[in-house]
Amino acid sequence: MNPDICRERENATFNTETLTNMLDGSAEKTRRRREIESLVINDPDFQHDDPNFMSRSERYDAAVKKSSQMIMKLRDYGISDPEEIYFYKRLKMWVKGCQLTFHEAFGLHYTMFLPTLYSQCTPEQQKKWLPLAENFKALGTYAQTELGHGTHIRKLETTATYDPSTQEFVLNCPTVSSIKWWPGGLGKTSNHAIVLAQLYTLGKCHGLHAFIVPIRCMKTHQPLPGVTVGDIGPKFGFEEVDNGYLKLENVRIPRENMLMKYAQVEPDGSYLKPPSDKLTYGTMVFIRAMIVGESARALSKSCTIAIRYSAVRHQSELRPGEPEPQILDYQAQQYKLFPLLAAAYAFTFVGQYMSDTYHRITGHINQGDFSQLPELHALAAGLKAFTTWTANAGIEVCRMACGGHGYLCCSGLPDIYVTFTPTCTYEGENTVMMLQTARFLVKCYRQAREGQQLSGTVSYLNEQQRLQPQPVSSRPTVVNINDLASLVEAYKLRAAKLVEVAAKSLQGELQRSISQEDAWNNSSIELVRASDAHCHYVVVELFAAKLSEISDTAVHSVLNTLALLYALHGITLNSGDFLQAGLLSVPQLSQITQRIKALLVEIRPNAVALVDSFDYNDEMLNSVLGRYDGNVYESMFEWAKRSPLNRTEVHESYYKYMKPLRSKL
Amino acid sequence: MNPDICRERENATFNTETLTNMLDGSAEKTRRRREIESLVINDPDFQHDDPNFMSRSERYDAAVKKSSQMIMKLRDYGISDPEEIYFYKRLKMWVKGCQLTFHEAFGLHYTMFLPTLYSQCTPEQQKKWLPLAENFKALGTYAQTELGHGTHIRKLETTATYDPSTQEFVLNCPTVSSIKWWPGGLGKTSNHAIVLAQLYTLGKCHGLHAFIVPIRCMKTHQPLPGVTVGDIGPKFGFEEVDNGYLKLENVRIPRENMLMKYAQVEPDGSYLKPPSDKLTYGTMVFIRAMIVGESARALSKSCTIAIRYSAVRHQSELRPGEPEPQILDYQAQQYKLFPLLAAAYAFTFVGQYMSDTYHRITGHINQGDFSQLPELHALAAGLKAFTTWTANAGIEVCRMACGGHGYLCCSGLPDIYVTFTPTCTYEGENTVMMLQTARFLVKCYRQAREGQQLSGTVSYLNEQQRLQPQPVSSRPTVVNINDLASLVEAYKLRAAKLVEVAAKSLQGELQRSISQEDAWNNSSIELVRASDAHCHYVVVELFAAKLSEISDTAVHSVLNTLALLYALHGITLNSGDFLQAGLLSVPQLSQITQRIKALLVEIRPNAVALVDSFDYNDEMLNSVLGRYDGNVYESMFEWAKRSPLNRTEVHESYYKYMKPLRSKL
Repeated sequence: MNPDICRERENATFNTETLTNMLDGSAEKTRRRREIESLVINDPDFQHDDPNFMSRSERYDAAVKKSSQMIMKLRDYGISDPEEIYFYKRLKMWVKGCQLTFHEAFGLHYTMFLPTLYSQCTPEQQKKWLPLAENFKALGTYAQTELGHGTHIRKLETTATYDPSTQEFVLNCPTVSSIKWWPGGLGKTSNHAIVLAQLYTLGKCHGLHAFIVPIRCMKTHQPLPGVTVGDIGPKFGFEEVDNGYLKLENVRIPRENMLMKYAQVEPDGSYLKPPSDKLTYGTMVFIRAMIVGESARALSKSCTIAIRYSAVRHQSELRPGEPEPQILDYQAQQYKLFPLLAAAYAFTFVGQYMSDTYHRITGHINQGDFSQLPELHALAAGLKAFTTWTANAGIEVCRMACGGHGYLCCSGLPDIYVTFTPTCTYEGENTVMMLQTARFLVKCYRQAREGQQLSGTVSYLNEQQRLQPQPVSSRPTVVNINDLASLVEAYKLRAAKLVEVAAKSLQGELQRSISQEDAWNNSSIELVRASDAHCHYVVVELFAAKLSEISDTAVHSVLNTLALLYALHGITLNSGDFLQAGLLSVPQLSQITQRIKALLVEIRPNAVALVDSFDYNDEMLNSVLGRYDGNVYESMFEWAKRSPLNRTEVHESYYKYMKPLRSKL
Repeated sequence: MNPDICRERENATFNTETLTNMLDGSAEKTRRRREIESLVINDPDFQHDDPNFMSRSERYDAAVKKSSQMIMKLRDYGISDPEEIYFYKRLKMWVKGCQLTFHEAFGLHYTMFLPTLYSQCTPEQQKKWLPLAENFKALGTYAQTELGHGTHIRKLETTATYDPSTQEFVLNCPTVSSIKWWPGGLGKTSNHAIVLAQLYTLGKCHGLHAFIVPIRCMKTHQPLPGVTVGDIGPKFGFEEVDNGYLKLENVRIPRENMLMKYAQVEPDGSYLKPPSDKLTYGTMVFIRAMIVGESARALSKSCTIAIRYSAVRHQSELRPGEPEPQILDYQAQQYKLFPLLAAAYAFTFVGQYMSDTYHRITGHINQGDFSQLPELHALAAGLKAFTTWTANAGIEVCRMACGGHGYLCCSGLPDIYVTFTPTCTYEGENTVMMLQTARFLVKCYRQAREGQQLSGTVSYLNEQQRLQPQPVSSRPTVVNINDLASLVEAYKLRAAKLVEVAAKSLQGELQRSISQEDAWNNSSIELVRASDAHCHYVVVELFAAKLSEISDTAVHSVLNTLALLYALHGITLNSGDFLQAGLLSVPQLSQITQRIKALLVEIRPNAVALVDSFDYNDEMLNSVLGRYDGNVYESMFEWAKRSPLNRTEVHESYYKYMKPLRSKL
């Protein structure tokens, strides 16, 4: 064990295990999580080479192998609770020498194909398809996005035309831009796809519907006639996943392959409308809510690596003649990493809140109460964007805070980044998400103006109508920079102000007699800022609320310091807003800088313990820089020696090009 | 040709070629650049597979092949002017199917090994080594950084101990942390390395000196006795470069292998000091100055890809019932991309300025005038950090502005990012750079306080002493948001203010009777902010200055719009500073948002022409999304079909894992 990192642990003012239990939910949950983790970590079947040393084809091969083994292991271990399966699967992807998280060869089979069969099949369809799918005879994916169409799914071009003479649908991708593109597992793995297509019957288009389309022979795995299917090629990350393309040319499927729980096409071609068009709303909200937790995990892993490394790396000199200090002693390094550590904790609590809220509201919905769904939908969209943008940039700050070594794959950070960064784009592009949240905020603002009482996270828009912030000169300062409650209030008033600015911009544009749609587009800048401020308020508020639940005083104290840092740091990044809204005076800005410096000093002795509490074991983190024992240089050297370029002392290119070159010159 | 992108070009208000000529320097320079480009693009020897489809070993192999061919081609083509060699080499790395830029197998041989021999060898040493190096018999690299030591080179641990009995130096890496780590071409390619080591002779350490160390046999290329050398393993990018490690154990080299132009060790072991310790200062400044130009290129390439794609991509709806609009019509998209486009132009001009200034000041230095070197040193450090940070984040904004497709390697954007991002770390870590600039600024501030007259970019620190900005309430507003000169003035005053804040923070810390070094560390936040504000001012100032050189009114007009956008957008990002310094009133902030929106509308019709003017041909850009003809979907589909996973219809993993799994279940 590296002595620097031992000393760090000795100096902590709180008990790491207490905080870990709090993050897991209880001591018992920590125990069970670790039990499952050790099952995987100690399973010799899951030991394999570092994927960084493999070609893409080898990585795909290893992913298929792991997914296949996992199916057997889950049965062997008797793990069947969905939450435990989730633990296990997450971990499964992290076993020795593998930094991958969600890269599962059969990922979309579990997350999209099966759930869609459960929710959108008629009982007869379930009788046919569930046994096939649950036994992996029919291995499926979900094909929605097309080359030319993403966010705006109404314009998808793939067609399913009903032919009453044979009682079949004929599927076609009529253009290059209508080729299905991106579905995970589509390229090589799946033999079925749920295809979203425009339904035509009796000469009329009825919009998008879902169809089960066999794409490969269940015996030979060869593509079926009319099907062109393949891998879309190498990507920034997710190398082991065969995201695919699919071109359908006059592919005929039986009428019964349309998912008919809601909409139906009768044998004669007549069309029966679904009872509602919002039946898939819930899944979308759920996935976005879950991504908030992913932001927390990606950021907490990155902070673990960067902070542990900063505790063992010595560099430059603070005082002449003295040994090189730990780089964690530099204020500039603390100022990079500790606000991100605070954000990692904030997002962890926000992720827990979103998960709890989703389950609570789902309960209400099952009882017929849809009233809270719009707020949850808006919050999930905005927080998905807010947390993924912050985490995305934060991972890179962590990587660069490790200097050159962060650039090596063995640091683990490049893989965390390329695996996480798609969250800014998928499940709703972030700017589009922010604009969706803004639409809800502006609507609430108008309702508040009309005197309606709002509830939940937007209820402050009512207060806004009663209490207009005054210019700073004419009233005492609003914010007390040492009081978290006062800071929450300031964030709330900033959000209220920016929602008002956005609403007034819309109004102003409309007064210039532009259409509603142009007015919206011309106010995008203000609308995105309003959503951002709203989400920022929610995060600060939830962090503060979490503190009240913590009974352990030592843990409470250190998390309170982090919460203050998170709030004050956010103010300095957006100081113009707070000054503009009269929530802050100019002299307070320099006081905040001083206060932040004091907080960095307070956090410094607890920094390593705070990342230890996330409890990522070395196998899951798989980073030479983030090792628990701090022995970074030895393990970097050992790792490098295994690089494929080192398999021979002299690379073949020497004989092919360099030696001949010399004889020519 | 895609009709959307044709229409964009027709709508431009200026002549693209005029702007291209201006960027190149003249019409003649544009012509010659294109001539050299076409030599490479049309050379069948340089056509090869897409490196994205290769393993790392294949990529390294291809890089060695290209570098070897290049040496022959330069002779064949008769290209000998250094600037033309630079063009050619840059382009050489960009030939068909290859997005790589500086990844040259023999890169460090050219950029470090040969130049060091030229500058630090005695005439006798040159006589021995130059013929070997110039004919690639001795292929070299430059080994400075060690596993445990980067920025602070004084603490390097590798030793060279003189043994007078044999007149040899004995080289050792005594610890794991002293293993040489990172040099390009060290792992497999080089047979020599210039090694920096602590010189010990007659029992005394004389600090770092450079030694020519043979590491591989010149006949067999096998590592020599006592030498452990290899590749450091896969990285985020630069896959084709064999960055290496080197461990030396009692490796003996003749006394004559120490580079002795300045310091010397006599046969008896007595040591002669060099006349000055700043003799390598110039190269460091030069490389940092050149990186500013790299920032401009990386950002302009990214903008070219994202803006052309945004002109052909249609998505969602602005007005109900109308066709999907080009995504470039969304204000949110313009607000992401146009400020980056403005920054790309700004950095291009700053890069030209840094190059010109370097050559001018080098002229002065050669005439014995060192007076401008400290300012250039500080400016190069700060602008290197300022422009690389902006470009680094900007590339990712461009990538994500392309939605999911930006994540595909064929977009070209992932490679631009991973190739560019090391500039934030190498040649001086960015935060360290900012602190170096701050050291200069604080020194100048103190000189100004003492009444000294400053010159160059810091002369405003004299004005600062005369003109203290007043609180906004007590004087008319300083800034005219429609006038570039007034905006430059505002940036200047902001920089002056933040340098003052930093200097006062230092002073305050010292009054709390802390050591000079602790005071410096405790003021890092303010010091970095001061440097950032200084660099921002310099960039705005140089952009404004460039406009006065432009005679073509149409080009002047569009660049003036970009300069205004650059300046105003920077104010909104840092509005707290401007409000705090009393340079801006609260109502002006919303006026700025309105003005920015108007500028986005002005730039919109010229956006494609502005990126066309950078004149990256398709082979150099190598992006399916950034194609000049706009035919993105067809070429994505063609590219994907070539993916190695598509070589067979059924991947072998099906037979190995999936088929057996089904029989078990």
